[in-house]
Amino acid sequence: MTRDPVAKLLLFGATGDLSQRMLLPSLYGLHADGLLPDGLTITGTARHEHDDAGFRDFAKHALDQFLPDDRKDETAIEGFLARLHYQPLDASNVDGFAALAEKLGDISGGLAIFLSTAPWLFGPTITGLKSAGLAGPKVRISLEKPLGKDLKSSQEINDLVAAAFPEERTYRIDHYLGKETVQNILALRFGNAMFEPVWNARGIDNVQITIAETVGLEGRAGYYDEVGALRDMVQNHVLQLVALIAMEPPARFDGTSIRDEKVKVLRSLRMIGPEEVNTHTVTGQYDAGAVKGEIVRGYDEELGKESDTETFVAVKAHVDNWRWQGVPFYLRTGKRMTDRHSEISIQFKPVPHSIFADRGGQLQPNTLVIRLQPEEYVRLLVMAKEPGLDRDGVRLREVPLDLSLTTAFAGTRRRIAYERLLLDLIEGDPTLFVRRDEVEAQWTWVDAIRDGWKANGTKPKGYASGSWGPNASVALTERDGVTWNE
Amino acid sequence: MTRDPVAKLLLFGATGDLSQRMLLPSLYGLHADGLLPDGLTITGTARHEHDDAGFRDFAKHALDQFLPDDRKDETAIEGFLARLHYQPLDASNVDGFAALAEKLGDISGGLAIFLSTAPWLFGPTITGLKSAGLAGPKVRISLEKPLGKDLKSSQEINDLVAAAFPEERTYRIDHYLGKETVQNILALRFGNAMFEPVWNARGIDNVQITIAETVGLEGRAGYYDEVGALRDMVQNHVLQLVALIAMEPPARFDGTSIRDEKVKVLRSLRMIGPEEVNTHTVTGQYDAGAVKGEIVRGYDEELGKESDTETFVAVKAHVDNWRWQGVPFYLRTGKRMTDRHSEISIQFKPVPHSIFADRGGQLQPNTLVIRLQPEEYVRLLVMAKEPGLDRDGVRLREVPLDLSLTTAFAGTRRRIAYERLLLDLIEGDPTLFVRRDEVEAQWTWVDAIRDGWKANGTKPKGYASGSWGPNASVALTERDGVTWNE
Repeated sequence: MTRDPVAKLLLFGATGDLSQRMLLPSLYGLHADGLLPDGLTITGTARHEHDDAGFRDFAKHALDQFLPDDRKDETAIEGFLARLHYQPLDASNVDGFAALAEKLGDISGGLAIFLSTAPWLFGPTITGLKSAGLAGPKVRISLEKPLGKDLKSSQEINDLVAAAFPEERTYRIDHYLGKETVQNILALRFGNAMFEPVWNARGIDNVQITIAETVGLEGRAGYYDEVGALRDMVQNHVLQLVALIAMEPPARFDGTSIRDEKVKVLRSLRMIGPEEVNTHTVTGQYDAGAVKGEIVRGYDEELGKESDTETFVAVKAHVDNWRWQGVPFYLRTGKRMTDRHSEISIQFKPVPHSIFADRGGQLQPNTLVIRLQPEEYVRLLVMAKEPGLDRDGVRLREVPLDLSLTTAFAGTRRRIAYERLLLDLIEGDPTLFVRRDEVEAQWTWVDAIRDGWKANGTKPKGYASGSWGPNASVALTERDGVTWNE
Repeated sequence: MTRDPVAKLLLFGATGDLSQRMLLPSLYGLHADGLLPDGLTITGTARHEHDDAGFRDFAKHALDQFLPDDRKDETAIEGFLARLHYQPLDASNVDGFAALAEKLGDISGGLAIFLSTAPWLFGPTITGLKSAGLAGPKVRISLEKPLGKDLKSSQEINDLVAAAFPEERTYRIDHYLGKETVQNILALRFGNAMFEPVWNARGIDNVQITIAETVGLEGRAGYYDEVGALRDMVQNHVLQLVALIAMEPPARFDGTSIRDEKVKVLRSLRMIGPEEVNTHTVTGQYDAGAVKGEIVRGYDEELGKESDTETFVAVKAHVDNWRWQGVPFYLRTGKRMTDRHSEISIQFKPVPHSIFADRGGQLQPNTLVIRLQPEEYVRLLVMAKEPGLDRDGVRLREVPLDLSLTTAFAGTRRRIAYERLLLDLIEGDPTLFVRRDEVEAQWTWVDAIRDGWKANGTKPKGYASGSWGPNASVALTERDGVTWNE
């Protein structure tokens, strides 16, 4: 594919948390590796009254704090800071955008905008950009979540954006898609002939996706309490993982082909409504407990008020198409869990008949584990014969075939997911961004679950901080004879 | 299954090379691990004029020489030697067997005989055993190769044995079947649901089996020059590996079920006769050269005379049944090769369509390597995405998923293949021994190739010691677009 790099990058929310922790370190990483276009300028904007020098100081401080030591290079940092500019802006007031446009100057070489902002600022910002001539055919825009709280508000935001930016210049970020291991799902599935014949209902018994955090609210209390686990994690990251695992082979590795296949999966998700939520979903909210040896408070206490927001959700989902008929996708995510780990576990069917049964050999079905956090690896669990004389029967044991991405590719730096996404934005490759139809299919499915909870008056069940969530989550799979891979 | 251990073991050829290097150390290993039946006695016999004490000295010396130091335990060695007895015997003379029987005494607790002897002694030995009452229903006999030089001579020997021992008490040794990794072929194939769907002509492009030695004649000149590589290695070990790779799933893990399936494969081998030998087989004989940095002589010079015996053979074989139609099995074995290694390499088909082609991603078909020597491991080669930003296209790389049997099962001692086979003989489990119908199917196929060579006047091509055999062996696969896995 042809790359079409822009000459300027504009960062909204440039003094915010995401910018300090992720965006500035990521852009620095790309700069230090010589990957940014020569002459690309990066203009930050926010309410803060910085000048260019002040923003460079701010950025220098962020790099000092968030870059690993071995990545700090004085010359590279100096070169990177020289790219930075700053324009203060109150985005709620359309008047300020003219000055922003003036600061940016000539954008005929292309402009990429990274927009991470509070929901209520979307409208004014888009209007401002358009009024100041910052939404023309040479401009692409990247949107960071939250993009709405349900299908309706998401459509409103997307309509707003669409009034200024057509879909092909709109880059919706789901940072999970920037992760190497997530991209490796496609390489594994479609780069190897041996998985595809078993990658369906005949070969796979169930799929499990877990995103478990140990943290609690982490200062995001206001936002989090409004959305909860289902909307914060399942609606975007978890469903994107479902789509990558379940999609049909695309004809090509490009934005259209891949997203066409992903959206087909998302639209094939079986609706879980009022009749099904009690049997197909579990919600929880953490109580006090201990995580990693530290006593932590319960959610309500941390929040400072009573709340019915779920901090844990587990869902038994189905993809209603030929390939996946009858295969449950067990999804769960939660805060204050036992361990921080994100992984996909593909549980294959057992062998149709064990030839070892007479000899006492016990077989476990094969499992493919795709681990996203905290390590990144792919592990295939297979049965092998234990060395020995088999006098008491053939002893079989499950052993791991490991593809450690860090070991196999030693010497390659593990990048921040945003590095990949920012570079793709700058260079104009939409493949790893989420298309509007995907987002809407995700919301449609999530909204039905929320409607179901509402209709049933479903309240989250308490679970001890440091556990794997409410017992009902265990029951959700065990009823089907399936055990969560932990 | 029920084990039926014998009380006595009788070793023919007890002072020979195999006994010193393999049998006595193996029996000691079983003894030291407490695996031999209490009270089992081991009686050696050969022409040598030892008494019990002399044989124990001999055995002690063999253990000193061939046991690894960490396995030498004074108490265990003493206990083992106490099991040993000896009776000199000229097996060509039937008269000596009465004394042997007397030495053995009561065999009502069961007797297992291990017979490793020159071909011309088979007849007299069997006659002697029968005449001395050492072939009754409580006696089982194990036969070590060579069991004939072709189908006819093999049948003669087997008829001879069958006159005294029915098939179910006849245990033909192929020591490859005692290897852990060879047994693991069955565990991998039938203990894992994910391999079977691709384990056929739809999923597999070709199978390669290599048994490469670096040694030359090693003092076996007389025997080896009479048989050559095809009969020394392919007729037994290589074809047994083919059978294990290609067999249908047996109903049970027992001697009847497994051998019924193996013999079906061996009988399905497509005959290679006079019309096909030139295109489907390659023979070679090593010339002078250098192996592992040492100058070595050519075969004729080492042998001391001109010879047309092949020290290398490569065969393109086919299994004519539904599962394997159109899948070549490339088999090769040779002496004085570049490296000592034995391995099976299963080359899977490429993906039907590469979605990465547009992005410059290069795919290698999956390969499963089952390594038998010098290390033992199973390695699955899969394609994964190289970490990176994919600006010049999606970079895919072949990475190994390794099942190291030594690592996965650390702490378990790697046993000599004979330990397993001797214990199965003593306890009466025939599963890992070769049945007569298998041997005859192997000879039938091998004889046809030899007849083809004869009809075509085929002579082995010279190859440099330290190479991978004659160029024609490379051409054999490359004509099909296949490269030997090296």
